[in-house]
Amino acid sequence: MIKIAIDANGGDFGVQTTVPAAMMAVKKYDNIEVILYGDEAKIKPLLTNSERITIVHTEQVLSMGEKDPIKAIRSQRDASLCLAMKACKNNEADACVTNGPTQCVVVGAHLLVRRLPQMERIALCPFLPNLDGNPRLLLDVGANVELRPEHLGSLAIFASVVAKEVFGRQNPKVGLLNIGSEPGKGREVDKESYYYLEKLEGINFIGNVEPTEMVNCPADVVVTDGFTGNICTKAIEGTAKTMGAMLTEEIKSSLGGKIGYLFMRKNLKRFKKRMSTKEVGGALVFGLGKVVVKAHGNSDAETYVNAIRLAKEMVEADVINKVVNVLPKVDENAA
Amino acid sequence: MIKIAIDANGGDFGVQTTVPAAMMAVKKYDNIEVILYGDEAKIKPLLTNSERITIVHTEQVLSMGEKDPIKAIRSQRDASLCLAMKACKNNEADACVTNGPTQCVVVGAHLLVRRLPQMERIALCPFLPNLDGNPRLLLDVGANVELRPEHLGSLAIFASVVAKEVFGRQNPKVGLLNIGSEPGKGREVDKESYYYLEKLEGINFIGNVEPTEMVNCPADVVVTDGFTGNICTKAIEGTAKTMGAMLTEEIKSSLGGKIGYLFMRKNLKRFKKRMSTKEVGGALVFGLGKVVVKAHGNSDAETYVNAIRLAKEMVEADVINKVVNVLPKVDENAA
Repeated sequence: MIKIAIDANGGDFGVQTTVPAAMMAVKKYDNIEVILYGDEAKIKPLLTNSERITIVHTEQVLSMGEKDPIKAIRSQRDASLCLAMKACKNNEADACVTNGPTQCVVVGAHLLVRRLPQMERIALCPFLPNLDGNPRLLLDVGANVELRPEHLGSLAIFASVVAKEVFGRQNPKVGLLNIGSEPGKGREVDKESYYYLEKLEGINFIGNVEPTEMVNCPADVVVTDGFTGNICTKAIEGTAKTMGAMLTEEIKSSLGGKIGYLFMRKNLKRFKKRMSTKEVGGALVFGLGKVVVKAHGNSDAETYVNAIRLAKEMVEADVINKVVNVLPKVDENAA
Repeated sequence: MIKIAIDANGGDFGVQTTVPAAMMAVKKYDNIEVILYGDEAKIKPLLTNSERITIVHTEQVLSMGEKDPIKAIRSQRDASLCLAMKACKNNEADACVTNGPTQCVVVGAHLLVRRLPQMERIALCPFLPNLDGNPRLLLDVGANVELRPEHLGSLAIFASVVAKEVFGRQNPKVGLLNIGSEPGKGREVDKESYYYLEKLEGINFIGNVEPTEMVNCPADVVVTDGFTGNICTKAIEGTAKTMGAMLTEEIKSSLGGKIGYLFMRKNLKRFKKRMSTKEVGGALVFGLGKVVVKAHGNSDAETYVNAIRLAKEMVEADVINKVVNVLPKVDENAA
């Protein structure tokens, strides 16, 4: 039985999302058990079926607008997010799912779940929609504003194991996010990273990947520092959202557009779905001794179920142990 | 009469684009004169009207795939791009328009046109499409992989003059591209830049702008280093292009989609036009003693005419002199 700790008070809608999602997930996957860390008085009325679901009561929750994540994690140890993460650390759960504030998730993962001893950095890894329908892993997008080549190397190994074991990509291709395709492009650190990754055993490095290619991407995994990754993801997200708004505006602006919409409604829905990553359900935090999945703050219950599924699949695939088995080889090579 | 030097051999289509564009521009704007730097034997058959157009013959051209721009600019001084830029430097022209390879344009601008003495760096500044229809200035997107706060400051002043004098924005708002809206976000250099720009006189700094906002942007001008700017622009460009391809694919995938298309053809064309910056015509190189406009390598003649118009408007607005008048004040404040 896979035990999943859920930050039930977290996110924009708290128990309204997490409790229905937990019930759906338990019904759908018979090999999971869920522990809800949250406000019992609010959870109980929603919990119409408590099979394989337990509650650990806490009223505390981290604010979605939290400006000082380090202080918040240190001072609010009874917050639902902190308790769920601590349960992972103490082997009371195999994985943690949260839709709490991103920087608190990163800090909490670091302080409460803790890094694998072989990983010098952790990374936040979302899944980007792609033209071919297969989401791509981009990391880091916000755990570290700067990363050295050797950090990118161990994160690339971690992500390659996930791409293979959870997403079924054989010999996953790893790219370095950069401003040109040739080696020698970018800042000094990007040049160094290129040559480091090129020589690194245990990954299938295919060279630089330009941001123009990110949604039609030749690599399965793309690595970069958290500042650059964040800029890139947010630019993609903003463009997709604004283009969607523009399209809706143009369609609604005339009778022809409205009639046309009736005919191509299904096509436009499929288009919208292709640009969404709801089915993946969340981003992963890489580099930890346990599985941590971060769902969007505004996730609905269906999306949150997918985040729970992602956590379950990470545990089923035994990703952490497989990463641990690969990493020491790299250390030998680097030495 | 405004004299515009044109790199006639440049771009993906050479004289096939530049010569028709020159004739159209001269017909449209009676206060310009064009000097075509290019292959006379190829230009003459296309030049059906040579009023206010002269030819300076050269067969040399910089390759669009040039890998070593510094060597290329130094060794091919008779290339059409180099001659057009040199004409600016020597006051034989007021502005230069080129659709040559970007890095050669940057290096050529630096070595042949030369910086204003008050500007420590030059920057490449494209215009990004925006939800409200008013393009935004983003710089730098590729002239320098790293920029110090004081470089961003003088570039912000330059761009503010352009936004006001050429694009009619009153008291143009300047933003810093960053991964969060609050001060204190980003790398060390971003934090320093924030506090530097906040105190800088001569600009209207509104704080950080996130990449999610770039195509629906609260600022008129957004500054960043050339690496980050390039990542952001390319992510926007790639997403817009891929989404366009996905939309076309979905529409064509069923009869309903095709019928719907007939009804909303005009709406979809307007949508496509809103995501395009063809009407601006090109990117500007900021920080120089003369106006340099860089059109896309694959520009058609209409887009190239817009690049010529942009050059003309920059000269008409007397941007360079206005920048020179503003800059010394900054030096006094900084001292």
